Amino acid sequence: MRKYRGSSKLLLQPRTTNEVSQILKYCNSRLLAVVPQGGNTGLVGGSVPVFDEVIINMGSMNNLITFDKGSGVLVCEAGCILENLVSFVDDHGFIMPLDLGAKGSCQIGGNVSTNAGGLRLVRYGSLHGNILGLEAVLANGDVIDMLGTLRKDNTGYDLKHLFIGSEGSLGIVTKVSIHTPPKLSSVNLAFLACKDYFSCQKLLREAKRKLGEILSAFEFLDNQSMDLVLTYLEGVRNPFSSSMHNFYVLIETTGSEESYDREKLEAFLLSSMEGGLISDGVIAQDINQASSFWRIREGIAEALMKAGAVYKYDLSLPVEKMYDLVEKMRQRLGETAKVIGYGHLGDGNLHLNISAPRYDDMIFAQIEPYVYEWTSEHRGSISAEHGLGLMKANKIFYSKSPKTVQLMSSIKKLLDPNGILNPYKVLPHSLSSH
Amino acid sequence: MRKYRGSSKLLLQPRTTNEVSQILKYCNSRLLAVVPQGGNTGLVGGSVPVFDEVIINMGSMNNLITFDKGSGVLVCEAGCILENLVSFVDDHGFIMPLDLGAKGSCQIGGNVSTNAGGLRLVRYGSLHGNILGLEAVLANGDVIDMLGTLRKDNTGYDLKHLFIGSEGSLGIVTKVSIHTPPKLSSVNLAFLACKDYFSCQKLLREAKRKLGEILSAFEFLDNQSMDLVLTYLEGVRNPFSSSMHNFYVLIETTGSEESYDREKLEAFLLSSMEGGLISDGVIAQDINQASSFWRIREGIAEALMKAGAVYKYDLSLPVEKMYDLVEKMRQRLGETAKVIGYGHLGDGNLHLNISAPRYDDMIFAQIEPYVYEWTSEHRGSISAEHGLGLMKANKIFYSKSPKTVQLMSSIKKLLDPNGILNPYKVLPHSLSSH
Repeated sequence: MRKYRGSSKLLLQPRTTNEVSQILKYCNSRLLAVVPQGGNTGLVGGSVPVFDEVIINMGSMNNLITFDKGSGVLVCEAGCILENLVSFVDDHGFIMPLDLGAKGSCQIGGNVSTNAGGLRLVRYGSLHGNILGLEAVLANGDVIDMLGTLRKDNTGYDLKHLFIGSEGSLGIVTKVSIHTPPKLSSVNLAFLACKDYFSCQKLLREAKRKLGEILSAFEFLDNQSMDLVLTYLEGVRNPFSSSMHNFYVLIETTGSEESYDREKLEAFLLSSMEGGLISDGVIAQDINQASSFWRIREGIAEALMKAGAVYKYDLSLPVEKMYDLVEKMRQRLGETAKVIGYGHLGDGNLHLNISAPRYDDMIFAQIEPYVYEWTSEHRGSISAEHGLGLMKANKIFYSKSPKTVQLMSSIKKLLDPNGILNPYKVLPHSLSSH
Repeated sequence: MRKYRGSSKLLLQPRTTNEVSQILKYCNSRLLAVVPQGGNTGLVGGSVPVFDEVIINMGSMNNLITFDKGSGVLVCEAGCILENLVSFVDDHGFIMPLDLGAKGSCQIGGNVSTNAGGLRLVRYGSLHGNILGLEAVLANGDVIDMLGTLRKDNTGYDLKHLFIGSEGSLGIVTKVSIHTPPKLSSVNLAFLACKDYFSCQKLLREAKRKLGEILSAFEFLDNQSMDLVLTYLEGVRNPFSSSMHNFYVLIETTGSEESYDREKLEAFLLSSMEGGLISDGVIAQDINQASSFWRIREGIAEALMKAGAVYKYDLSLPVEKMYDLVEKMRQRLGETAKVIGYGHLGDGNLHLNISAPRYDDMIFAQIEPYVYEWTSEHRGSISAEHGLGLMKANKIFYSKSPKTVQLMSSIKKLLDPNGILNPYKVLPHSLSSH
């Protein structure tokens, strides 16, 4: 992926909602375009200026507002860094319903604005379910207070969802209210080897039934991903020292009773081994070993960056078809590039990465538009969790019908008639107001 | 509650999305108002005509379209009756993520359009999290195909949420795609008695931690609810034959391993008994006993209807303040009416019911607007799960800020400029286009 870098003459760091409102009111009246920016960890160029838009960086709005120790409802400003929130609620016996590799610098407002997914989605669902309320500032400076803290509220249209995942193009999220689940005491992690993709799929189905309520992550990586991590990251070791396998699966369980959970996981591994679904498997014996397992999965992106040029795709596909695309891509590219497949198998989310010595138009022509066409043909999504940003705005029709996109565009025009909010992003350029 | 009954010269039962589209296109061009109608089980007059609107009843669109036995994704038409879907997915080892008393006649399209809550929300979350996609027809007849089946899809604005809970006023939902979780084999139900509301609250906190991942329902009812059920429903018995208690709690657990779950629930009951949180408790020994426990909780609405006139309120409130309102109401009403409090404690959802021999303006004046003012003051919702419909459209400002309601109204005007879809409902009359 080519890195998107932008430049701007002006970066503002508002400290209050009122300041955000004043800035937007002014910019709207002068037709000045703005880019809302959180931790700037996005992968599709959504939070960088394209020309000379004013950057509104939310990092100074980083106060915790309230935390209810009974219900676990956290209310905070948009600029809070995810990892800080994770630590804070952890101290009170709760966990954040989302967790991602970028947690050390991404901000909750950015997570909400991009509908970030991550590792815990398989257990806790998407932010559309976990965000209880938010405050957003519209392009004209109007502050929309939807900062409720209730699990249930059916009074009128639930407009907060418009701001979840719209990448700052309909308004700037300034405060959020999140439901955090109680932290359960028992967490176990298993690292497993499978001989083929079909076994990974079958293992997922079995895990959903046999581990049921304690399953909290189901991730997979292929042989090429493992190879890459072992080559480029220091201190990473293959948990199965003797041999390489074709596929690896990480299964995490989270529950309230260590002994039961452990027995359940062990029984599951045993039956999977006997049934031939896994060829090897190891349960982390302590937190260090668990970290070393996670390091393999979470280190793939870093290893890819070190390996050279990388073309990144984040796709949702029906689980049974997901790996076909990786294999098709290998056929197309032959020896010119390495094709790496990994991701959130439990959610049907493939991170397809093509690693090459350098960016090359010939390689690129073999990848696009094929990857999008194939995904579209199989009714997948061309952006599972990364969003569209600048990079993929024009690709929206691969996953959305023309009438649906038209309706998005009407809503954009209603909320931001001058098109000042994050222009050139999300919606296709043919439909944007510029 | 006064029952809302309407009449119409015309009731249409389209069999296809195309027919819905043709009907709306015609009605829109002639400025004819329509009422979308599912099972007509709503409690706020949302699905009945006010004057002589054309009724579009969805009951004939009741086909299952696809069911993926791997992922549990069900795609079906809007007119499918919830109970039929429950049975269908059950046969394949899955469960619907929502369950409500009206399941025998309510339709999934109506459930989606009203964002129905019900008994399983505490475990599986709201329909905003469980509905993966939908198809809706706009007022002008445009069919918006958002019928995705993916867990994750961040390509543009997630507009399906506009149609979840907007009570048919922005479009008619014609098809839905739902994520159904695997059915777990072990279900246990306990009926418990608490001496006061504070104990119920504390029990909830403990249950969230100690039962954690297996907790699937946490319902409560007060002494007066029990009394009513015992008086008006035949064949219902108090599980604690010897004495009446002030509060009762139903705790359901759902998990994958009967022996562990049972031990966990028994240990929880024991420690709650020792800690003084519960004064008595019994675990259902078989499905019949479980049904008889649920009958008490689910029979309250029926018993209320038999007891005379009833004023019904469906409120979200912070759990710790929830029962204060019931007591305040008793103080206000004295001997003139019975005040009954029950509901989904796990979600902070109180069903407040006032039962009187007959409807009486004096009683009504003691209830409203006080009940709304009190709820608003405590930042609650005046409609947790029932919606606003006709009955509560003008009450929206008790729970939503003027700017938020203004934005709802703009969106209504954008999607339905002639105001033909379910007029006089949801939005306050001062803002509606008529």
